[in-house]
Amino acid sequence: MPRFFIDESCLSEKHAFVRGGDAVHIGRSLRMRLGDEVTLCCGGMEYECKILNISDEECRCEIISSHNGRNEPNVHLTLFQAVPKSDKLEFIVQKAVELGAAEICPVLTSRCVSRPDGKSFRKKLDRLNKIALEAAKQCGRSIVPTVTEILSLDQCIEKLSAADFPLVCYEKGGKNLREVFSQTEYDGKTIGIFIGSEGGFDEKEIELCLSAGVTPIGLGKRILRCETAPVAAVSIIMNLTGNM
Amino acid sequence: MPRFFIDESCLSEKHAFVRGGDAVHIGRSLRMRLGDEVTLCCGGMEYECKILNISDEECRCEIISSHNGRNEPNVHLTLFQAVPKSDKLEFIVQKAVELGAAEICPVLTSRCVSRPDGKSFRKKLDRLNKIALEAAKQCGRSIVPTVTEILSLDQCIEKLSAADFPLVCYEKGGKNLREVFSQTEYDGKTIGIFIGSEGGFDEKEIELCLSAGVTPIGLGKRILRCETAPVAAVSIIMNLTGNM
Repeated sequence: MPRFFIDESCLSEKHAFVRGGDAVHIGRSLRMRLGDEVTLCCGGMEYECKILNISDEECRCEIISSHNGRNEPNVHLTLFQAVPKSDKLEFIVQKAVELGAAEICPVLTSRCVSRPDGKSFRKKLDRLNKIALEAAKQCGRSIVPTVTEILSLDQCIEKLSAADFPLVCYEKGGKNLREVFSQTEYDGKTIGIFIGSEGGFDEKEIELCLSAGVTPIGLGKRILRCETAPVAAVSIIMNLTGNM
Repeated sequence: MPRFFIDESCLSEKHAFVRGGDAVHIGRSLRMRLGDEVTLCCGGMEYECKILNISDEECRCEIISSHNGRNEPNVHLTLFQAVPKSDKLEFIVQKAVELGAAEICPVLTSRCVSRPDGKSFRKKLDRLNKIALEAAKQCGRSIVPTVTEILSLDQCIEKLSAADFPLVCYEKGGKNLREVFSQTEYDGKTIGIFIGSEGGFDEKEIELCLSAGVTPIGLGKRILRCETAPVAAVSIIMNLTGNM
């Protein structure tokens, strides 16, 4: 069923409204009709709705039922990704959203080849958040994961080390994810995983992570590309925590 | 260290030879010198070598030591992938090789939108096998995983059902991979996993799989794109079998 994300201001007790481009999309591209059903998501809730009225400005819907988002993982995973070259971050954002990440924080580390300044990255950020939104619709999320501004290493480590499971993926090895996630209950836990860019991390960066209590993890003996590592790590974590 | 795959004919007791384009690559692109070290792989073995002589035709090396490939998983995983649209198969091959698959078999299922004939696919196949070779070098494999000709559904099910762990990824759900891989020892086991194209599988195809003894597995509640599912599945299987 088509799925749209709406603002809280578009919700009343019995009705929900889709506005802007999504309204046009419902009426023109999807060619939906009165009585057709859509899923509207807001703040992690899902509203199963019937269309009452369609125009290019607004699609008015009746709320049939509502429930907590059924496809959301029960853990809050933040991916801290050192900025990779070219358009790899777009790929990583799309896949991380599909796989269940709640937030993606690009990070500038010493080995990042691509070093966008704040201004040029802000433009990119719009695009990254659009990719996150589209991926969230397509895969059936009930929240739209956020891509944040670029963090410095210090900002990253501060945020990362506040997670219940703060992890850094180190190419020279570390704990296996099976050891880290060996318990059986993870409801509400926060997980942060920090992944390097093409050149990985330098030792000083790893030392800073370790001294902040971050656990180094390894992803096996094969050298994964910097865009493969986050996809593999998020997949494995979601499986081990019972969310995939 | 640079890694090259050589034929058995290029190995003698004490020496190994790199020929053709790789010899040019060693001398011209990498600008290696006499005495520099390379890893040469043949038949799953790795030979640590020193360069004795470089020309555009041949690079002659002295074998210093040899051992079984250290980065190979101890399971033999075959990915049966229903042919997806556009160049997604290239992406899937690259990632599956990095993650440890031993073989990738494209399969034609009823919902494949892209339906290349044998002749047009053969051209593509050369490219896919080159991608597999490059990925194998880059990530440190000691075998080059093969991409096979396109299999029919019958051929796929016959080959798949011969695996110790024959699996099909079904979007309507199935066992969790943690249930399938709950033992502790997998050395030498064969695993086959069949993944659909954009439209997934039709029910008849799933029934045929089930009646051949293939286990349906689920990858969680979010709908994964057809190129995300194999990356997630291979990552999780390699983790659960102790290979990542």
